[in-house]
Amino acid sequence: MFQTFEETARPEQGPPRLAALRGALVAEGLDGFVVPRADAHQGEYVAPCDDRLAWLTGFTGSAGYCVALRDRAGVFVDGRYRVQVRAQLADVFTPVDWPEVGLAEWINDALPDGGRVGFDPWLHPVEQLRSLRGALKGVELVPVANLVDRIWEDRPPPPLGPVAVHPLELAGEPHGDKIARLAAALQADAAVITLPDSIAWLLNIRGSDIPRNPVPQGFALLHGGGTVTLFMAAEKLREIGDHLGPNVTLAAPGEFAGALAALSGTVQIDPATCPAAVADALTQAEVVEAPDPCLLPKARKNAAELGGTRAAHLRDAAAMVRFLAWLDAQPADTLTEIDVVKRLEAERRKSNALRDISFDTISGAGPNGAIVHYRVTEATNRPVKDGELLLVDSGGQYVDGTTDITRTVAIGAPGDEERANFTRVLKGMIALSRLRFPPGLAGRDIDPLARVALWEAGLDYGHGTGHGVGAYLSVHEGPQRIARTGLVPLEPGMILSNEPGFYREGAYGIRIENLIAVEEAPALPGQTVARMLRFETLTFVPIDRRLIVAELLTGAERDWLNAYHTEVVAKIAPLVEGPARDWLLQACRVI
Amino acid sequence: MFQTFEETARPEQGPPRLAALRGALVAEGLDGFVVPRADAHQGEYVAPCDDRLAWLTGFTGSAGYCVALRDRAGVFVDGRYRVQVRAQLADVFTPVDWPEVGLAEWINDALPDGGRVGFDPWLHPVEQLRSLRGALKGVELVPVANLVDRIWEDRPPPPLGPVAVHPLELAGEPHGDKIARLAAALQADAAVITLPDSIAWLLNIRGSDIPRNPVPQGFALLHGGGTVTLFMAAEKLREIGDHLGPNVTLAAPGEFAGALAALSGTVQIDPATCPAAVADALTQAEVVEAPDPCLLPKARKNAAELGGTRAAHLRDAAAMVRFLAWLDAQPADTLTEIDVVKRLEAERRKSNALRDISFDTISGAGPNGAIVHYRVTEATNRPVKDGELLLVDSGGQYVDGTTDITRTVAIGAPGDEERANFTRVLKGMIALSRLRFPPGLAGRDIDPLARVALWEAGLDYGHGTGHGVGAYLSVHEGPQRIARTGLVPLEPGMILSNEPGFYREGAYGIRIENLIAVEEAPALPGQTVARMLRFETLTFVPIDRRLIVAELLTGAERDWLNAYHTEVVAKIAPLVEGPARDWLLQACRVI
Repeated sequence: MFQTFEETARPEQGPPRLAALRGALVAEGLDGFVVPRADAHQGEYVAPCDDRLAWLTGFTGSAGYCVALRDRAGVFVDGRYRVQVRAQLADVFTPVDWPEVGLAEWINDALPDGGRVGFDPWLHPVEQLRSLRGALKGVELVPVANLVDRIWEDRPPPPLGPVAVHPLELAGEPHGDKIARLAAALQADAAVITLPDSIAWLLNIRGSDIPRNPVPQGFALLHGGGTVTLFMAAEKLREIGDHLGPNVTLAAPGEFAGALAALSGTVQIDPATCPAAVADALTQAEVVEAPDPCLLPKARKNAAELGGTRAAHLRDAAAMVRFLAWLDAQPADTLTEIDVVKRLEAERRKSNALRDISFDTISGAGPNGAIVHYRVTEATNRPVKDGELLLVDSGGQYVDGTTDITRTVAIGAPGDEERANFTRVLKGMIALSRLRFPPGLAGRDIDPLARVALWEAGLDYGHGTGHGVGAYLSVHEGPQRIARTGLVPLEPGMILSNEPGFYREGAYGIRIENLIAVEEAPALPGQTVARMLRFETLTFVPIDRRLIVAELLTGAERDWLNAYHTEVVAKIAPLVEGPARDWLLQACRVI
Repeated sequence: MFQTFEETARPEQGPPRLAALRGALVAEGLDGFVVPRADAHQGEYVAPCDDRLAWLTGFTGSAGYCVALRDRAGVFVDGRYRVQVRAQLADVFTPVDWPEVGLAEWINDALPDGGRVGFDPWLHPVEQLRSLRGALKGVELVPVANLVDRIWEDRPPPPLGPVAVHPLELAGEPHGDKIARLAAALQADAAVITLPDSIAWLLNIRGSDIPRNPVPQGFALLHGGGTVTLFMAAEKLREIGDHLGPNVTLAAPGEFAGALAALSGTVQIDPATCPAAVADALTQAEVVEAPDPCLLPKARKNAAELGGTRAAHLRDAAAMVRFLAWLDAQPADTLTEIDVVKRLEAERRKSNALRDISFDTISGAGPNGAIVHYRVTEATNRPVKDGELLLVDSGGQYVDGTTDITRTVAIGAPGDEERANFTRVLKGMIALSRLRFPPGLAGRDIDPLARVALWEAGLDYGHGTGHGVGAYLSVHEGPQRIARTGLVPLEPGMILSNEPGFYREGAYGIRIENLIAVEEAPALPGQTVARMLRFETLTFVPIDRRLIVAELLTGAERDWLNAYHTEVVAKIAPLVEGPARDWLLQACRVI
């Protein structure tokens, strides 16, 4: 099993660790210290050595901050983690509703003028620090070596996961060509690249430093002349031979800061993700702020990446179909949420192609389905009860692609409200699936289309409709997203999730998620718009017909659903057999 | 008649006037001069004395620029005016597709380093000038007294239209209260107000300086202490007695520049609309850039303004119904576009309440319907032919409200393509009419909802879906709008148009327009969103059933349309009689 179910929070260890941190504060003459969840690479998952927030506070969510002062300590978490944080913290910590209450606002209230708060400049991006500094009144932010690391006695070493070559037939473009075309387009003499998935994409390598994301941790400099300096432990690269080639120079991670200090001319950094320490180290250079040059090229998948992703989705769909068929065949009231997770991972492993799961499977029965980022543990594990909904959000990392799929399933006979609201969510999912749109639109522009049917009933969901997805990279990648914050135009090749939902707190959760890829739409007779885009659906798994109120669908929506299920059968029936195949055929009947 | 039909362009006068302007260039030692359509108040309509662009070039559109250099002269117009400009310009002028080609880009190409281009700082807002200066390379922009005014020998004097009091029962709030609450919320010691409709709203006055817009030209200073200095010719204010009261001081327009120079402390200007000359004159003050403080309060209509607007729309709908009934009764091939305009204005005048039309009526038959901002003249006047569509976009200025409505009517039997595309446009109009949405959304977020049905067929329209509308003020007001550029959250009381369209160039045009007002939506059973908004429809005029393909509508769309027509009958049938009433009843039959 990739996934584990233990409760990793250790609330009882919070008080002594906080006390030790306060000792370090006093020694440094500071009034406080900021501990973010993030590491220097700003990813969603961190290595154990970087999991400082969980180590200090017990809070294990994927985003948040602790601001430890001498007399109080706030733990700032967003809407996803409001319930979880209260269960995980000892009472020396105060949960703070963030971003409704900002760090600066809270610090301004807590500290007098002249207060000094330390931070680790490797863990805060330039923009974040700038806005924090701008909002602080009379309190100084002081860069210091990380105080948590100082008191963390058995801190694990940095990961040394081996790196593998990402084969050209899946990458679709030699890394030498990528380096050359990005270098030629740079708006500066060099660019600093701090995101592991950018480095992995640029160099056609994959890593194993972090769970769920097949990327190697490291930093890189892309030089305008078409060369790269890669700062990465040499022992991680033993298995890739001379793959990197003469234009990539390897350097030890410890040499990174010195190399930055030696750079002159103009140097490009991405202020959204580049650590403040990097900008500070560029003492000889003129800093130019611009998006990471890999972001857009990586987001626009090429034909090989799309081809691999399609293959991964078919393989993953077969596993999902076997899993759903098994689930439907179980006697009432015999399963728990953990049983569901185990069986699903086992089905994914059967292809012998699964490298990892792409995130911890969300298996939420009844009211747990309404916890958007629920991770089941032995402590929370709930029976899957007859008459409830079961929400399963999961994905696989295959060498040819990354998958992410949510299906909500009726266990026994579903209620009328659940069916009506499932149908409204489905209408939103179909609206995006059917959409044709002119180029230039961003995710923000189409996000409401997935919500209108819910809004009509006074309902909504508190998350974006879709996130970008990598090609055997992070299951959450930018800059493409379908959300209020999605301002980058959608372009052919971008892979996104399409996952509207609805959550009745304390009762049930509904989410339906397919992955989709932006593609050119062939012109229609009489078309007047020069060019149009649409979405190719990548996910082919039945949507639970028992939860659909057919009369709430328009004719066009029903046509889409029937055509989808026809395609599911055509693509997946040949990949499954026996009871799974029988189940698939009946699950895809015309509605 | 308010509307006239003569062709006002005088292409033959362009060459001698351009030659005279070039003489002035030489005398000033300049290489060029910029002539915008705008006056100092950045409105859509200008007084004859400010119509410099038309006087110089012959181009009569409502937006554009001429950049006159010694050896060439470009006339920059947007997509609405590409055809018109070619018909109106003598060949000493070169039409330029703007904003695809920017002024700076064109000037950079035309002039060498060290070039000097003059401009009138009263006619260019701060932001526009800033971006123009930022984009020019090696060319200097030089503020000068307007060179067109210098050569324009019979230039008309500034308008002196009388000002009237806007009665409290229609304004809904005493102007003293408006001044006090805006002054209390100022982020500076004073604000400069340069928009006539802001001044008219703030002081509860209406004017008659400019056609179509019932506003008086002038400038104002709003002081933090709760007083106003109004710079306006005293002879315009003779009829309002002591309406302005002791907190408003009148000053002559000629004193404005001096008063700006005397201001100290912080002074707020709106960089989007405030002339650069104003900012330059604030030599003793610290300039703070912020939106015109009247914009949002003016956009959020109060109960009295909404009540007046509803009354104006009923009156206007009765005129429209009489007009449409008359139109349907005319024998085939007996009308021209101008006949249509005349009859419609005559019907509007019958109530004896019409103060003006709110813009020149657009009456486009057949292919002329595809010209989005078509204004019929004796030269373009076209017969209304059997089998064609007629697009009529018009509105009235009544003392209680401003209307704006578009109906597209089948003349004889319409074609299948026209009916299908009319139905698609209608689906977009209904989508917004039926929408419920959470607060915080801006026009950008809902604009696509009006286009999806067209996009599905590869079609679209090249304009926004809706503009803000004033309450007996400008028919185009900001900041609210339903368009890609609409970034201000929609709030209760805001009036907008809802006017999707489709235009087949050279063949036909379709547009359907109702005005709508944002309102709170009563909570539904089971609603989980704390607060929701929706649109109240203000316009009650039948939509041509002959152009609707009922099978293309969903059940919900059909229900909306039938409910709308039922409400039209309930509200308008009591206001019309005889054949018009008979026509109304049959036009509103259930579909």
